[in-house]
Amino acid sequence: MQIRQLLVDAHRCAGPLDDADTLAGAVDDAARSVGATIVERARARYVPHGVTVVAILAESHVVLSTWPEHRLALVDILLCNGVMDPREAWEVLAAVLQPSEIVATEAARGLVPSTPKPAVG
Amino acid sequence: MQIRQLLVDAHRCAGPLDDADTLAGAVDDAARSVGATIVERARARYVPHGVTVVAILAESHVVLSTWPEHRLALVDILLCNGVMDPREAWEVLAAVLQPSEIVATEAARGLVPSTPKPAVG
Repeated sequence: MQIRQLLVDAHRCAGPLDDADTLAGAVDDAARSVGATIVERARARYVPHGVTVVAILAESHVVLSTWPEHRLALVDILLCNGVMDPREAWEVLAAVLQPSEIVATEAARGLVPSTPKPAVG
Repeated sequence: MQIRQLLVDAHRCAGPLDDADTLAGAVDDAARSVGATIVERARARYVPHGVTVVAILAESHVVLSTWPEHRLALVDILLCNGVMDPREAWEVLAAVLQPSEIVATEAARGLVPSTPKPAVG
């Protein structure tokens, strides 16, 4: 099993960070863009602003949180199907969020920790 | 604004990784342990096994995903209240998941990228 995670901090976003419907649609589109199957959704709108959108997938999840007052969005894409590329899903979100700058971290999750090998020779 | 994220890969878990009710309760307890407010919940059970539980918080979110067949759980705790320690929330989950080994990564999210300073002298 291969589990890929992409975390993105999207800065100075020009997109509609307070529009829950648009963001939820973008998360759906992002999941579908890699062939993932959405099995559950949740969202919250914050007062006075900000949105969190979650899509639980057959292949793990996508979480998008926004802080419109900081023009900041945080994205977490976790995919446990090794042929699905979380960067493709991110590109769909990027087109909606329209950040000026991103900090992205990709990691393999759930790898069995290596155990020390016996010394040889 | 300070946003702290703790990612944990919990290996060789002895806890009930396929018990959605227990895991959802543990996520609730973890959120409350740091004083967070739960504003929305979602969950999915996979066939033949596996659970994803999400709690959207006033202070961001907790996501727990399990692969019972690998005795693996992945945890994502994101808290945008700097006085809340995601490690405290993790300890609540750890007591239920009972991993033999963990790989934990803590990161500050959403920091404004540093811009190159003009050369001086």
